[in-house]
Amino acid sequence: MNEETAVAAVKVTHLPLIREPRGSLIFGEYGAHLPFIPLRYFIVFDVPAGETRGNHAHRRVTQALICLRGRVAVAVDDGQHRDEIILDDPARALIIPPRVWAAQTFGSGAMLLVLCSEVYDADEYIRDYDEFSRIVSAT
Amino acid sequence: MNEETAVAAVKVTHLPLIREPRGSLIFGEYGAHLPFIPLRYFIVFDVPAGETRGNHAHRRVTQALICLRGRVAVAVDDGQHRDEIILDDPARALIIPPRVWAAQTFGSGAMLLVLCSEVYDADEYIRDYDEFSRIVSAT
Repeated sequence: MNEETAVAAVKVTHLPLIREPRGSLIFGEYGAHLPFIPLRYFIVFDVPAGETRGNHAHRRVTQALICLRGRVAVAVDDGQHRDEIILDDPARALIIPPRVWAAQTFGSGAMLLVLCSEVYDADEYIRDYDEFSRIVSAT
Repeated sequence: MNEETAVAAVKVTHLPLIREPRGSLIFGEYGAHLPFIPLRYFIVFDVPAGETRGNHAHRRVTQALICLRGRVAVAVDDGQHRDEIILDDPARALIIPPRVWAAQTFGSGAMLLVLCSEVYDADEYIRDYDEFSRIVSAT
């Protein structure tokens, strides 16, 4: 099941949750839940409450953002539309394709898991908003 | 960097940690840190303290176990050697190849991330220890 956002290419995918007395399990698989095969993952934690991270776009990489603990507010912007998505449930994955500017504001104690469609390449980041605007308006 | 265990095929990989005033980031990539491309991931949490999960082996799937919070003790057994590995640091990934029997005992509040080399297939699990023993002794 997908949830739309005001930024057409950005979607929220609902992940299966299996809740049992001996523990809870949430899973995501390529195909059914993830539109890409993750070649890289990272986790972000110990972020001071209210701190904003990100503030860049990617030229090629698609990401899935999953809030494992606490609350992360994600601002997304494709140059034409903007939205803010609140992630506070590990059973929701926010799918952000390339050429979407994104910023994450962390709540207290939050932990964010990010799955990425490529390994790290510094040249693949767009860190300047004016450059981002030029790129997305040219396509 | 890899840490050996008493079960030759099971290793602990150390993941890069970037610690900054605005937050900490730990990453893992296919190739440098993960010997497989994850097609599936799952997280396990809300497990009663002291509960043991797992107690099975896989015919084909390799997994990476990363303890995101708290402490998980992982017992591994290849039919010849056994070991117990304590995971209490998200910068360590325990790599468990196929045909290793494994069980995870959760500490209070622990959260475990597991990356898997294949999507779910119930037939791929070995859930009976005697069958496991026959399979590993035949190879």
